[in-house]
Amino acid sequence: MLGKYLEAVRGKGPLIHNITNYVTVNDCANILLACGASPIMSDDCGEVEEITAICGGLNINIGTLNKDTIPSMFLAGKKANELGHVVILDPVGAGASALRTETAKRLLDEIEFSAIRGNISEIKTLALGAGSTKGVDADVADAVTEETLANVIAFAQDFSKTTGAVIAITGAIDIVANGERAFVIRNGHPMMARITGSGCMLTAMTAAYITASPENVFEATAASICAMGICGEKAFETMEQNKAGNSSYRNYLIDEIYKLTAKDLDEGAKYMLV
Amino acid sequence: MLGKYLEAVRGKGPLIHNITNYVTVNDCANILLACGASPIMSDDCGEVEEITAICGGLNINIGTLNKDTIPSMFLAGKKANELGHVVILDPVGAGASALRTETAKRLLDEIEFSAIRGNISEIKTLALGAGSTKGVDADVADAVTEETLANVIAFAQDFSKTTGAVIAITGAIDIVANGERAFVIRNGHPMMARITGSGCMLTAMTAAYITASPENVFEATAASICAMGICGEKAFETMEQNKAGNSSYRNYLIDEIYKLTAKDLDEGAKYMLV
Amino acid sequence: MLGKYLEAVRGKGPLIHNITNYVTVNDCANILLACGASPIMSDDCGEVEEITAICGGLNINIGTLNKDTIPSMFLAGKKANELGHVVILDPVGAGASALRTETAKRLLDEIEFSAIRGNISEIKTLALGAGSTKGVDADVADAVTEETLANVIAFAQDFSKTTGAVIAITGAIDIVANGERAFVIRNGHPMMARITGSGCMLTAMTAAYITASPENVFEATAASICAMGICGEKAFETMEQNKAGNSSYRNYLIDEIYKLTAKDLDEGAKYMLV
Repeated sequence: MLGKYLEAVRGKGPLIHNITNYVTVNDCANILLACGASPIMSDDCGEVEEITAICGGLNINIGTLNKDTIPSMFLAGKKANELGHVVILDPVGAGASALRTETAKRLLDEIEFSAIRGNISEIKTLALGAGSTKGVDADVADAVTEETLANVIAFAQDFSKTTGAVIAITGAIDIVANGERAFVIRNGHPMMARITGSGCMLTAMTAAYITASPENVFEATAASICAMGICGEKAFETMEQNKAGNSSYRNYLIDEIYKLTAKDLDEGAKYMLV
Repeated sequence: MLGKYLEAVRGKGPLIHNITNYVTVNDCANILLACGASPIMSDDCGEVEEITAICGGLNINIGTLNKDTIPSMFLAGKKANELGHVVILDPVGAGASALRTETAKRLLDEIEFSAIRGNISEIKTLALGAGSTKGVDADVADAVTEETLANVIAFAQDFSKTTGAVIAITGAIDIVANGERAFVIRNGHPMMARITGSGCMLTAMTAAYITASPENVFEATAASICAMGICGEKAFETMEQNKAGNSSYRNYLIDEIYKLTAKDLDEGAKYMLV
Repeated sequence: MLGKYLEAVRGKGPLIHNITNYVTVNDCANILLACGASPIMSDDCGEVEEITAICGGLNINIGTLNKDTIPSMFLAGKKANELGHVVILDPVGAGASALRTETAKRLLDEIEFSAIRGNISEIKTLALGAGSTKGVDADVADAVTEETLANVIAFAQDFSKTTGAVIAITGAIDIVANGERAFVIRNGHPMMARITGSGCMLTAMTAAYITASPENVFEATAASICAMGICGEKAFETMEQNKAGNSSYRNYLIDEIYKLTAKDLDEGAKYMLV
C-alpha cells in the first residue's frame, strides 16, 4: 500500500527547498537525490521567497539556528503557505535552548505545516512546553515504549488536531498521527542513532514524499518513515558484512534509499494502523 | 596531451582559496586534496583578502549565497585580480533567484575571471539574461544535444570573447571554449547528476588545474573536465560491482580522482578540439 | 594504560558542544558519535550559553571564522569556564590571517582552556607570534623531526605553563605536554593529511576524552591522539585492500574509531612518556 508513495516521488521528482542546518545539509541533499527528488538549499532573506516559489515543498529544520536564517524561515514559510505548497518542520533541539523552543513555537503560530517530525522530547516541548531534550537527542525519560504507546498516540493525535499537521514522532517505535488515526511503525535499527543526521534526512525525504502526494500527507509521511526504517535495517546488514562502522553506515543508508523499490517498501514495512 | 596538466597539479600542489556554499564544501575540500592541491575555505570580509593573497587561485561559488559572503566575494576577487591570481566562478543556481543572477552579473562586471563553469541554464542566464534554471539543475529545454551543439559552441565562444574567461558548460556533453577554439568532451556518466556537488567539485578542481597551469587556462580547464568525467565513469563501475548507491558513488568519484594518473587521463579523455 | 580513557568516553557518553567550521562539521559530529560521545553544534549568540550549560565540554574551532560566531565563542567559553566544564581550542589556520591569529590570542587571554590542539605552525603562532602557516597546513620549515624534537617538547611545556592548558602538537610525530611531562606519540599515517578534517575531528574527539576524564586531561589527551593515530593506520590498510582513495579513507577512519576497543588502544599506542 505504501509503495505507491515512493513511486510518486520517483515519477514526479519534486524540487524541495531546504532551510536547514550546516551539520547534515550534504546528507539531506544526497538523500533527496537518492529518493528521486531534487534539493535546493537557500537561506538568505533576499531570495528565499523566490526560491520556494519555484519548488514544490519546503523543509524547515532549526538545527544550528541563527539570527540570519530565522527571518528566512518565516518569509519562506509564509510564501509557501500562500502558494499552497507543503511545508514540513523539523524542530531539532527544541527544548535545548529558549531560542530553539521559541522559534519553533513562533513558526507553529505563524506558519501552517503539513507535517512536523521530531523525537518525543522535541514534540513534547512544542506541544506541552515541557520535554527534557538531551541536546539534540530524546531524553530517556521521554522514551516511547510498549507501556506508554497508547498515551503517546493520544498525545500525538491531540497535537495534530491543534496544529492541523500530521505529527511524526520517531524513535525506537515511530508514530505518525493525524487527528483520527495513527500508524505505529516498527522498522529501523538502533544504529541509526549512531550517525548524525538520520532525523534531518528523514524529514527532508518526508518533504519529498508529501510534496509528491499532497492529497494524502498522512500516508505519505508513514511511507517515508517506513522507507527510512527498512533502509536502516538493510544498511546495518551491509555494515556487518563489511565490518564497517558508523561513517560507512551513513553511506549505506543513503545507498539503500537510492536502491529501494516500491515492492521493497510494501514488503518491508512493519506497521499497524490504529 | 592533457595528462601533463594533472601532473602540474600534483607537482605544484597549489593552495586554493574557496568561497563556497555550505552544502558541498567538504566534498570540494576533499577533491582538492584528492587531485593534489590544498584547500582553504574562508569567507569573512575580515580576512578574505589576506587569505587569497597566500593562495595561488580563488574559487567563487554562489550556492547558498548570503548577504555576509557576497561582499567577501568582491573583496577576494579584486585582491586576486590585483595579484594576478587565477579566479574561477561557479554561478550555482543563477536564474533561480534575482539575488543569484544579479550577484553573478555584478561579479562578472567587477572581477576578471580566468574561467566560468556552469550548466547550460546558468551560463545562458549570465550571457543572455534568460535561461530556465530548474533550481540548481539545468532545464531540459536548455539541454546540449548533437543538434544544438554547433549553436552552443558559438554561444560559448561569444561569451568567452565578452568576458575574457574560458567558458565551461557541463552536462551530458561538455563544452570548453575560448574565443577561438572549443573542446567538445564526451566523458562522464549520468550518475554524476544523482549526487550533490559534482558541479561544485568540478569547479574547485578546475581552480587547481588552472592555478597549476595559468599559461594555458583553456587546455587546463578541459583537462580537469575530462578527469572528472573519466572518474565519473570509473566510479560507476565500482558502484555497480559493490551494488551501492549514490552516497557511496560520491566517495568512489573522489577516490578515483585521488588515484587518477596522467596516463589514465591521456588514454581516457574523449574529446574533439574544434 | 590509555585504554581506560576510551572506556570512560563509552561509559559516560559525554555531550560535547561544538562551535566549529562548516567544512568538517559533519565529520566532527560523526566521530563524536563513533567514539561514544554525543555532539551538539550551536553557534548563535542567542543560545550558546544555554547550550554549553547542558553539555559536559566545549570544543572551539576557528576554521571558517566569521564575525557572527566570534562573539559566540567568547560567550560560550566564559560560561563553560564559569561552570567548570572542560574547554578545548583548535586554532585552525592561526597565522594565515590577522583575524584568525588575533581571535585565537584573544580567546587565550579571556578563556581558560583545558587543552589546545594544533599543528606546529599554529601553535608557534599562538605562543611566539610567529609561525609560517601555509593556509591550514603546517609549513615544512616548522616540521617536528627527530632533530628538533627536544626543542619542540621544551617549547610545548613552556606554552603549557603560560596557558595552563595541555598542549597537543600533531604532525608526523605528535607531542602532548603539560608543564612537567610530555608524551611523544608515533602513531598515525601520512594519509591522514590527504583528507580534510583529520585535525578538526581529533580535537572534537579529544574534547570527548577530556570531558569524560577531567581529572587527567594530560593522559586523556594523549589517549585520544593515540586512538586517532592507530585508527589512521588501520584505515590505511582497509584503503589499500579496497584500492580506494581519500574519500573512502575518511569513512574508514571514522569507522575504525567506532570499532576501536580499549585493548586495541592499549596494544597499538606507540608513545614515550618523557
